[in-house]
Amino acid sequence: MPAPGFEPVSSSSLAEGLLLDSTLAAITPADPGALAAARDRQNRLSKPPGSLGFLEDVSIRLSGLAGVCPPPMPEPAAVAVFAADHGVHAQGVSAWPQEVTAQMVNNFLASGGAVNAFAAQFGAEVVVVDVGVATPVPDGEGASDGLLHRRIRGGTADMTLGPAMTRQEAVRAIEVGIGVADELVDRGSRCLLTGDMGIANTTASAALIAAFTGADPDEVTGHGAGVDEPTRRRKAQVVSTALARHQPDPRDPIGVVSAVGGLEHAALAGFVLAAAAHRVPVILDGVIAAAAALVAAALSPAALDVCVAGHRSVEPGHAIALRHLHLHPLVDLGLRLGEGTGALLALPLVQAAVRALRDMATFDSAGVSEKNA
Amino acid sequence: MPAPGFEPVSSSSLAEGLLLDSTLAAITPADPGALAAARDRQNRLSKPPGSLGFLEDVSIRLSGLAGVCPPPMPEPAAVAVFAADHGVHAQGVSAWPQEVTAQMVNNFLASGGAVNAFAAQFGAEVVVVDVGVATPVPDGEGASDGLLHRRIRGGTADMTLGPAMTRQEAVRAIEVGIGVADELVDRGSRCLLTGDMGIANTTASAALIAAFTGADPDEVTGHGAGVDEPTRRRKAQVVSTALARHQPDPRDPIGVVSAVGGLEHAALAGFVLAAAAHRVPVILDGVIAAAAALVAAALSPAALDVCVAGHRSVEPGHAIALRHLHLHPLVDLGLRLGEGTGALLALPLVQAAVRALRDMATFDSAGVSEKNA
Repeated sequence: MPAPGFEPVSSSSLAEGLLLDSTLAAITPADPGALAAARDRQNRLSKPPGSLGFLEDVSIRLSGLAGVCPPPMPEPAAVAVFAADHGVHAQGVSAWPQEVTAQMVNNFLASGGAVNAFAAQFGAEVVVVDVGVATPVPDGEGASDGLLHRRIRGGTADMTLGPAMTRQEAVRAIEVGIGVADELVDRGSRCLLTGDMGIANTTASAALIAAFTGADPDEVTGHGAGVDEPTRRRKAQVVSTALARHQPDPRDPIGVVSAVGGLEHAALAGFVLAAAAHRVPVILDGVIAAAAALVAAALSPAALDVCVAGHRSVEPGHAIALRHLHLHPLVDLGLRLGEGTGALLALPLVQAAVRALRDMATFDSAGVSEKNA
Repeated sequence: MPAPGFEPVSSSSLAEGLLLDSTLAAITPADPGALAAARDRQNRLSKPPGSLGFLEDVSIRLSGLAGVCPPPMPEPAAVAVFAADHGVHAQGVSAWPQEVTAQMVNNFLASGGAVNAFAAQFGAEVVVVDVGVATPVPDGEGASDGLLHRRIRGGTADMTLGPAMTRQEAVRAIEVGIGVADELVDRGSRCLLTGDMGIANTTASAALIAAFTGADPDEVTGHGAGVDEPTRRRKAQVVSTALARHQPDPRDPIGVVSAVGGLEHAALAGFVLAAAAHRVPVILDGVIAAAAALVAAALSPAALDVCVAGHRSVEPGHAIALRHLHLHPLVDLGLRLGEGTGALLALPLVQAAVRALRDMATFDSAGVSEKNA
């Protein structure tokens, strides 16, 4: 039964919608028995109850997701970097030329990005997905070279002039994300991390966050990858213009993402939905991932059970989106890079949370006296 | 030349003071050339300048410490858990019986603690040091079983009735910490983490923090491992009583730690000083480590260059101490466990910070366009 505020997606008439429909149908809520067992076990471990802070919550949530306490270790991990361009770049919302998206994709494939350095440090796989980069990226199919060619179109259209993409394209992009998550889980990944690359994608993120949370565009629009304050104000105005033009309805998430979103936002929403269907945890990166999670949550509120917020970026819309999603970020180090870096930094913390629940002695087993009543 | 507010330690007349003196003499400030090279390299890496947030600062500090950019990876890592008891426990400042200190030491030796779970997850060695546990802990010397017998005395005396320990005992405890760090570095550790175990040690920490920062005892006294609010108020009163009795002078750090500190605080101060002498980074755990770092900084301000604050605990004195030390915590997850858990959670973040500085491509090498002027 649809949750309040949730309108069924009218996609089943499209061939493209079948995978989305079956994925949505496979999502079920967290297991109450496993949640209760994990809460109880946390209180019996040889430490003051609650003293592992938010990591206890993480371990409990992952138990509910797995349906068993303790849950399996969230490993191996894979980060999928969804790359796409944005027509709204033409409005002068970024300090970076659009070709940087493709250049950075090449940089990731050559292992030169921050996402590569962090993934190597933490033993995570990196997969780069071209879901709509405007300028050519290298050929070569499959995961062998780390690049998946899944381009829906060469970047979105300018949202101030018309919809960023068609509804059909949005559904196809969502299904790209579903397909990537399905593939990664099939190949053994047991923790999925979101990554993104796309010059101007904080503008589309701000529009999505304003549309879903009702926040003022000026509040959710930040300096992105380094614009000055006059440009930030113009960027907020661009978001306002787009929202005024499309009047996106948050009860129609496909409509919202096609009007003002990015191809990577749609793909990331699908990635989260598929992870939820597989009951594999997803660590969200920054503001782009949070905007995409708003789309996913609007399609299936239970999909949020699968999400851990990796970090809080300095983009102001990120904190607003996380609050709306009731997600608490694990890392807060002033990052504003994207690529999946904030999700990767949270990976060892999530793994440590589960490791403690799995491996620690209880008061009983360790022969440690309990606190006085 | 002593820094302002620093009085030379009059310990050279003691045989026990020789190791402390030579350690202090070996501490030199961070290398300005390596600091500048690291700042420059961070700005040329293929990412928006500053977008890795506080991790950029960490990588720059570690370059200054190593005297080279990029610095070596901070691995292998070892956490030393200094365990001791506190005579002030008799004042009813803790909800836990004193024998829990020894029971938890046994739990660590059996790998049942949170510190063991996290260390195993992150590939760090755990060494437990009995620097003054009141009740017997197992025999067996050396690192083979993970326990180092370095007991100075069977816990401190009650600081409300007299000094917690003599000056000589404080110096010997500091030298225990120096010796442990020396041993770990000799055996190859390239990142040291502080750990601690001692029922009532948040009371001694509050007294040290009040003495060094001038903060009000009530401000720096928290709920520790779970006391209720009336007990917390009594605990703050106990700290006030001890400070009124001893009037500790922050210009005499040995005097302060012997009057109101713990044996593990003294040992941890020595551990930090020795790490500074070796120019090996130290990740500080929580409020106990911060109180000890105040002792170390009072003995040698340059020792702070070696310190990274692992996390911020919920103990209110911790944030006050970190502010005084100008240290920014990496993790802020509501932990209040000690043992080294907060330091361990920061270890992968510190390693990722260095890994990025070492491995990322620059704009030039990756052929990525830079931001428009």
